Amino acid sequence: MSAQMFESFKVNSPNVKYTDEHIISDYTYQTTKVQNVNGELIVEPVDQKYIFKTERKVPRMGVMIVGLCGNNGTTVVGGVIANREGLCWNTKQGLQTPNYFGSVVMSSTIRMGMDENGCDAYIPLKNLIPMVHPNDIVFGGWDINNANLADAMQRAQVFDYDLQVQLIPHMKNITPLPSIYFPDFIAANQKDRANNVLTGTKKEQMEQIRKDIRDFKESNKLDTVVVMWSANTERFSSLVPGVNDTIENLMAAIDRSEEEISPSTLFAVASILENTTYINGSPQNTFVPAVVDLAIQHNVSIGGDDFKTGQTKIKSVLTDYLVSAGIKPVSIVSYNHLGNNDGKNLSAPQQFRSKEITKSNVVDDMIASNNILYKQGEHPDHVIVIKYVPYVGDSKRAMDEYTSQIFMGGHNTIVLHNTCEDSLLAAPIILDLVILAEVTSRITMKKQDDDQFATFHPVLSLLSYLLKAPIVPKHATVVNALFKQRACIENIFKACVGIAPDNNMLLEQRL
Amino acid sequence: MSAQMFESFKVNSPNVKYTDEHIISDYTYQTTKVQNVNGELIVEPVDQKYIFKTERKVPRMGVMIVGLCGNNGTTVVGGVIANREGLCWNTKQGLQTPNYFGSVVMSSTIRMGMDENGCDAYIPLKNLIPMVHPNDIVFGGWDINNANLADAMQRAQVFDYDLQVQLIPHMKNITPLPSIYFPDFIAANQKDRANNVLTGTKKEQMEQIRKDIRDFKESNKLDTVVVMWSANTERFSSLVPGVNDTIENLMAAIDRSEEEISPSTLFAVASILENTTYINGSPQNTFVPAVVDLAIQHNVSIGGDDFKTGQTKIKSVLTDYLVSAGIKPVSIVSYNHLGNNDGKNLSAPQQFRSKEITKSNVVDDMIASNNILYKQGEHPDHVIVIKYVPYVGDSKRAMDEYTSQIFMGGHNTIVLHNTCEDSLLAAPIILDLVILAEVTSRITMKKQDDDQFATFHPVLSLLSYLLKAPIVPKHATVVNALFKQRACIENIFKACVGIAPDNNMLLEQRL
Amino acid sequence: MSAQMFESFKVNSPNVKYTDEHIISDYTYQTTKVQNVNGELIVEPVDQKYIFKTERKVPRMGVMIVGLCGNNGTTVVGGVIANREGLCWNTKQGLQTPNYFGSVVMSSTIRMGMDENGCDAYIPLKNLIPMVHPNDIVFGGWDINNANLADAMQRAQVFDYDLQVQLIPHMKNITPLPSIYFPDFIAANQKDRANNVLTGTKKEQMEQIRKDIRDFKESNKLDTVVVMWSANTERFSSLVPGVNDTIENLMAAIDRSEEEISPSTLFAVASILENTTYINGSPQNTFVPAVVDLAIQHNVSIGGDDFKTGQTKIKSVLTDYLVSAGIKPVSIVSYNHLGNNDGKNLSAPQQFRSKEITKSNVVDDMIASNNILYKQGEHPDHVIVIKYVPYVGDSKRAMDEYTSQIFMGGHNTIVLHNTCEDSLLAAPIILDLVILAEVTSRITMKKQDDDQFATFHPVLSLLSYLLKAPIVPKHATVVNALFKQRACIENIFKACVGIAPDNNMLLEQRL
Amino acid sequence: MSAQMFESFKVNSPNVKYTDEHIISDYTYQTTKVQNVNGELIVEPVDQKYIFKTERKVPRMGVMIVGLCGNNGTTVVGGVIANREGLCWNTKQGLQTPNYFGSVVMSSTIRMGMDENGCDAYIPLKNLIPMVHPNDIVFGGWDINNANLADAMQRAQVFDYDLQVQLIPHMKNITPLPSIYFPDFIAANQKDRANNVLTGTKKEQMEQIRKDIRDFKESNKLDTVVVMWSANTERFSSLVPGVNDTIENLMAAIDRSEEEISPSTLFAVASILENTTYINGSPQNTFVPAVVDLAIQHNVSIGGDDFKTGQTKIKSVLTDYLVSAGIKPVSIVSYNHLGNNDGKNLSAPQQFRSKEITKSNVVDDMIASNNILYKQGEHPDHVIVIKYVPYVGDSKRAMDEYTSQIFMGGHNTIVLHNTCEDSLLAAPIILDLVILAEVTSRITMKKQDDDQFATFHPVLSLLSYLLKAPIVPKHATVVNALFKQRACIENIFKACVGIAPDNNMLLEQRL
Repeated sequence: MSAQMFESFKVNSPNVKYTDEHIISDYTYQTTKVQNVNGELIVEPVDQKYIFKTERKVPRMGVMIVGLCGNNGTTVVGGVIANREGLCWNTKQGLQTPNYFGSVVMSSTIRMGMDENGCDAYIPLKNLIPMVHPNDIVFGGWDINNANLADAMQRAQVFDYDLQVQLIPHMKNITPLPSIYFPDFIAANQKDRANNVLTGTKKEQMEQIRKDIRDFKESNKLDTVVVMWSANTERFSSLVPGVNDTIENLMAAIDRSEEEISPSTLFAVASILENTTYINGSPQNTFVPAVVDLAIQHNVSIGGDDFKTGQTKIKSVLTDYLVSAGIKPVSIVSYNHLGNNDGKNLSAPQQFRSKEITKSNVVDDMIASNNILYKQGEHPDHVIVIKYVPYVGDSKRAMDEYTSQIFMGGHNTIVLHNTCEDSLLAAPIILDLVILAEVTSRITMKKQDDDQFATFHPVLSLLSYLLKAPIVPKHATVVNALFKQRACIENIFKACVGIAPDNNMLLEQRL
Repeated sequence: MSAQMFESFKVNSPNVKYTDEHIISDYTYQTTKVQNVNGELIVEPVDQKYIFKTERKVPRMGVMIVGLCGNNGTTVVGGVIANREGLCWNTKQGLQTPNYFGSVVMSSTIRMGMDENGCDAYIPLKNLIPMVHPNDIVFGGWDINNANLADAMQRAQVFDYDLQVQLIPHMKNITPLPSIYFPDFIAANQKDRANNVLTGTKKEQMEQIRKDIRDFKESNKLDTVVVMWSANTERFSSLVPGVNDTIENLMAAIDRSEEEISPSTLFAVASILENTTYINGSPQNTFVPAVVDLAIQHNVSIGGDDFKTGQTKIKSVLTDYLVSAGIKPVSIVSYNHLGNNDGKNLSAPQQFRSKEITKSNVVDDMIASNNILYKQGEHPDHVIVIKYVPYVGDSKRAMDEYTSQIFMGGHNTIVLHNTCEDSLLAAPIILDLVILAEVTSRITMKKQDDDQFATFHPVLSLLSYLLKAPIVPKHATVVNALFKQRACIENIFKACVGIAPDNNMLLEQRL
Repeated sequence: MSAQMFESFKVNSPNVKYTDEHIISDYTYQTTKVQNVNGELIVEPVDQKYIFKTERKVPRMGVMIVGLCGNNGTTVVGGVIANREGLCWNTKQGLQTPNYFGSVVMSSTIRMGMDENGCDAYIPLKNLIPMVHPNDIVFGGWDINNANLADAMQRAQVFDYDLQVQLIPHMKNITPLPSIYFPDFIAANQKDRANNVLTGTKKEQMEQIRKDIRDFKESNKLDTVVVMWSANTERFSSLVPGVNDTIENLMAAIDRSEEEISPSTLFAVASILENTTYINGSPQNTFVPAVVDLAIQHNVSIGGDDFKTGQTKIKSVLTDYLVSAGIKPVSIVSYNHLGNNDGKNLSAPQQFRSKEITKSNVVDDMIASNNILYKQGEHPDHVIVIKYVPYVGDSKRAMDEYTSQIFMGGHNTIVLHNTCEDSLLAAPIILDLVILAEVTSRITMKKQDDDQFATFHPVLSLLSYLLKAPIVPKHATVVNALFKQRACIENIFKACVGIAPDNNMLLEQRL
Repeated sequence: MSAQMFESFKVNSPNVKYTDEHIISDYTYQTTKVQNVNGELIVEPVDQKYIFKTERKVPRMGVMIVGLCGNNGTTVVGGVIANREGLCWNTKQGLQTPNYFGSVVMSSTIRMGMDENGCDAYIPLKNLIPMVHPNDIVFGGWDINNANLADAMQRAQVFDYDLQVQLIPHMKNITPLPSIYFPDFIAANQKDRANNVLTGTKKEQMEQIRKDIRDFKESNKLDTVVVMWSANTERFSSLVPGVNDTIENLMAAIDRSEEEISPSTLFAVASILENTTYINGSPQNTFVPAVVDLAIQHNVSIGGDDFKTGQTKIKSVLTDYLVSAGIKPVSIVSYNHLGNNDGKNLSAPQQFRSKEITKSNVVDDMIASNNILYKQGEHPDHVIVIKYVPYVGDSKRAMDEYTSQIFMGGHNTIVLHNTCEDSLLAAPIILDLVILAEVTSRITMKKQDDDQFATFHPVLSLLSYLLKAPIVPKHATVVNALFKQRACIENIFKACVGIAPDNNMLLEQRL
């Protein structure tokens, strides 16, 4: 028996204390400082003592989705209801039971260590430190379309028919709040859907959103709320000096209903002002400099951009594998088509352009890491195409071709066809994002000699695993390599309970 | 600038000393012991002080390949000659230059740390600790076919024509030593090639191999030799009590020319008795219990089995990614075809069976690690097919289909067509194996309180990254997940120079 | 407007007469006789006058399926019921309506000619001459498993769930007659299903089948019956002199329950003796010489072998296209996997071998037709693999790779992944086979100077379009090229109504 | 033996005469006239007697290529030289010999009939009626770049290196004539290549082209010349009343150097005025109404548009197969990328647009032919993408996905990856086009009662097999289905020697 599974664990260590309220961990953070001294690399190993403090009490959490009635929104809400209520349904293959597959929090495991017989012990990631269970999340939100969630869920054509039937009574009374609709920011083909929209000045609309958040929190007796943008991809906002460059300019621009202020920016500002975490699941540049500054000023977490579901996730795996094996990708061609409303909106050039940007940079860090293969500034050919093909609906297709140079002029060509069910891949990622954002807010830490505990930087780079174009604090490193992103989550949470990162050295077994 | 590259580095640490002869590193190995106490998992973080001592002097190394005149053998030798002599060649795409792409040692990089501006520093893996440069390796070996290496290289049809032309003068004077040929162990279709074979009793043949190794070492003034099996896949040997179960029985069985003693076992025994590292690049079970015991008794390193080139490598990446993302692969279908002599030999059922075994277990550790997705004993459907299609020659094709369950009954289907140039993928792996096996032999370590330094266990599990079915010491864990395998190599070599594993936490940037 | 569609048509020609009972057509059959005279090809155009006589009255037809409760059987019966009853059903994509897509008879059209404006007129193939409508067919049959058709249909997991629900009341009262089960002929893994089997001598079992046919015909007041083998693929029967070589030997062998007489041979013999058309939808060699002779003796139609559904159909299209374009396929590799009971049965080597044979010859006629590309006896590499992968169920996957030589040493490589829903492709082919076999029996013809009208040869090569390995009369040509096969059906039926073949010359428009 | 091959043949028929100069064939053309009489289809079989007269003397032919130094131009010229001179060359796979694979004329065969043993006789298509042999063609032409053909051939990177070496002496003395370059019509990225261009007014440039044709013909003592556009795809010309709508307006517009007159239009006009067949191998609308009228006025043949090489050819095969099998394609998604100069030029939106148009209509006739599957006006989703990926060079990649509805709501999904070597597929098609255009000019025909023999309509729809968007005479039917297109060529040439079309009925064998 090489692996054994446990639901929970107990840490036996003088450095870790579980109080009623907190887990407190004295932790040695091992890192390496480097310096370029006249072209020579000086490497200095550093052990830094940290204290991690994690609140144990899991709050009652609400999630407000912008675009609640879209395919993602209805899939995440319907999926949680089915899990919570234990709804089972029939398909031609027989009876199906609900699950949280595709959620790294709910369905993946963590290696905790090895016993004396060389058997590895694993626990669910969700049990490493206390996390909100998705079944306990209260959902609400906004949509420019007034369909109730049952109608919207049927329109989405994501769930099997017999599950749709069972979900209808649970969803038909949920209706979206009116949302912000500035036609210029999304494709013209979305106009028909816009029958549930706020009016008034941009300021008034933003204030309404703030009020919506407060009301939702109060009426549902919530401890905390996360706002999640899962609505249409907007075109990029122009970065205009005097408009969205500083907090003051931004607030003034909102006051005067400035053209270039997008709906998503208003949602983000409203959330931050309500002290509410805001996550951007689409590719647009909601987080203009002024919004980031506002989040930092208010110490409110923000995360984004763009859910990383199918093709990009695999690309960040395959490219990492190839480059770190000494194989040189020289051409990466990525074709996509989909037929849901996301695809329809992206069929407009400006909205596609937003998407193209988030999908393009995903290999850059890996390329930059290896200049044996790539000369300074050299890049593989990299093409990304997204097309709207109504017939395939939510069943997104990705077709990729990776051409790589191998030994002595040889080539390796990988061709890939990936049938992704778009919303069924995105929904568990939405859950992961809100759960991880929440738990992160309960972790504070300090260096041994610091006076005060601090939270994570408001720009939540820890969520990178789940995002196509992760935003990070200014000057910080963007990591796209998927296994590194996952290790980050795992190792930080392990630190909270005093466990060292998995170094994969297995010295015990190699001597 | 997010990444910077350096050729070499200097460690600035009280725990690391570079003497003329050694690198000595005081190292804290962080691990976690676990215990199952009445069903509860007790986790105990442990810091163990180790001292690593690495010889700095790189030896003059020879590599003797069994199957020297096969596609792999000629490709590795020709490739090294082209690199060493700087041979450039024309193809329709223009002038090509030699390289070591596809070698993790020669063409991949290691992140050493971050500078104060958040810029990562990388160095080539080969410069982390002193390693043999492939250009300096002396090659020789055996083959059942008497073609000289120039003829064999042309027959292989691996190198571009204009490179073949240039290599001929460098290779035509290299001829293989007669090899061991027991027809029963390889496909009948190999008979035509067998015109350069040893005769006599099994014992006599083994003694000839020993003499060959000694002669090769002496005549080339080598410090060390590695023997590498790159010959035909043999059928599995039966494990017969009294034959290959104990050292004594094995030696006696060889003495009496016992039927079930395979050529590869004779090569392995000869190598071990000559104190020479032996690596098995094919899938057969050369390492019967008695051979492993013999290696341990003589403290001679052995490594295997089966070069991990194309399809299996990607499988160990994709499955790892899927399972660790909470996605459940339920069917993995792998088709292969190739037209080189390896394919021809594998077209015989018994030889294919050996291959099927090494390719089958590659996802087992990942499945076992996640029993949220898989119940105890549950496995995905997993099919492996290899067919001989002469026309495609050395251009091996892999066609795979991965079907996975995602959220709420959804499915993700990945279809993959991979054009691998078989020998061009294998050759750099052969170089990696011999270089890593050699460097490993110069590393010794001890726990702080131990008296004596010890080498790595003779069963070199550290080579797993390069092997389809890695052999490991008895009771040790088989790791197939590719990124973990690479981390193992990286972190052990970093330990030798006193650098902690990369924990990917980037705490500096998240606060 | 380039095309116009009509439901029916009227022929305006002195050569065509529609009487109450018949359509009589005086037809000039244009053909070319060739002769090899001392190596020179002498070509002689020949116009032969024929009279075609087609009965207009469509009979009441029954179809008895061997393997009624398998996936094909339940799909064809359920599909016809749904069409006849107008059952609509919901899926996640919305309301679905029944159709006969995939049936060349029901869903394809025929170009009848061009009007004076250059607009083509088309009619449904089914309306060219009178044919049985599938809605009017009465179904029955045998199965070694006793499941009623509702249970069997659910087990098949072919129809969408909501359609299953609606079909249950229509199918639950249909039960299969006990069938013939000789374990030796099908895979051992089928044993569990065999709970509804005849006993007694082979002769007795055959007589029971004859009685079943008579009873079915009588109790359903049928004018005609077709027996269709859609049961498990059997292993090939050995062709044994004295056993299945002549009619007398065969009948005697049945009398003495000779080992090598297969269930399918008994069904074929029983059908022929009952004057009932017999079609073999599996690959085994039911039609041993004695069975063919018996069919000829009794002038009873037989057709086979093996439904041509997905991969083979495309192969016969692509290869035809390539070779007739002067492109030379040099390697064709075909992988398949499926998870239904057919796949399970084929996972046994002997049953797979039967399948491999029918799939192998499909390109032979095209290769043989072009010896500019292929020297005498030269063949492309051609590999066929079928694997059992339970998870994919009835959703058969075909993965093919075609490598072809093009101009001046170039290559064209086509890689194909084809998701076939096995039974949904096979069911309309079953309908086509029985409808076409029936209509063919109502056509007679004679040369102008002959005395008597004759039917088609009992070996119905006309069905080739629908069959992987079409059987043809002794010495006749096997045509696998799909477009030629379709043209044959179209042109013969056109002949029945006095219309010349489409020559595609469009001279009117080219002058 | 089911097929036998002959080099030549002799027709034994009273209706066919071979004189010294002509082949004269009395031919009964069977066709069917249809009429819609009050919604009812009246079908009238018609036998029309024709006399075909084919000149037997094969002329000495020259081909002038516009874009001579592009990849297609150098490949066709180099390929012919290699064939003519018998150049063999080495690749890693060994010695290669030249061929004309991929040419339907040179490498495909025709079934002539069946002998009394049921054995089919085939002859090469090229031997059906007298045709120019490609080895005998004299090549010349124009290019906006002044590279000699040896340099251009090397730049193209199409031929294997060792063949390049051998071709250089044969090609280095061939240089292109200066060509017409109006930057507005091709992509801006072509500017660097334009160093060999005509100057002066549009009229002067056209006159120079006329002179070039005359000079080429005279200096090479040619009987006939064909001009072939294989240069960059131009943007579509606007159809402007008063400019390119009538012959007079066009000639006047050329006189005044009207903006909207494209280079290709000037080449076409020049050719027509020189009585020289003009073929358009790119997608642009060279053949504006006035040019077509001019061709008709001068009775000069024109053919186009756009070489049908890889993806479109297969699409016209697969869609034809599916629709004629009663299967309903509902989404066809076609992605392409290539890295040669064609791809570079097409990366500009206007040039791509020209291509998109020719590739889009290819399934229209098949869809229109079956309104059981498609309602009036209904179309599958059809997407076409072409991207420029420099790395892949001339090795064009096509990735397609065909989704079709099958029986009872099922789906069939075909995914295809096609590695096309662009110029090696195009070059033999260029040869086919010029050879077929030439032979067509030697065929005349008349109805029995007509006074005069007539040539084919100047708009050569007979070439459709080789063209993506075949132009046809006004009001004539566009046929895209590939097998029909080939049958057209075959049957017309057979008519010239008095042989009836292959009706595939094989009545002899079915009775």
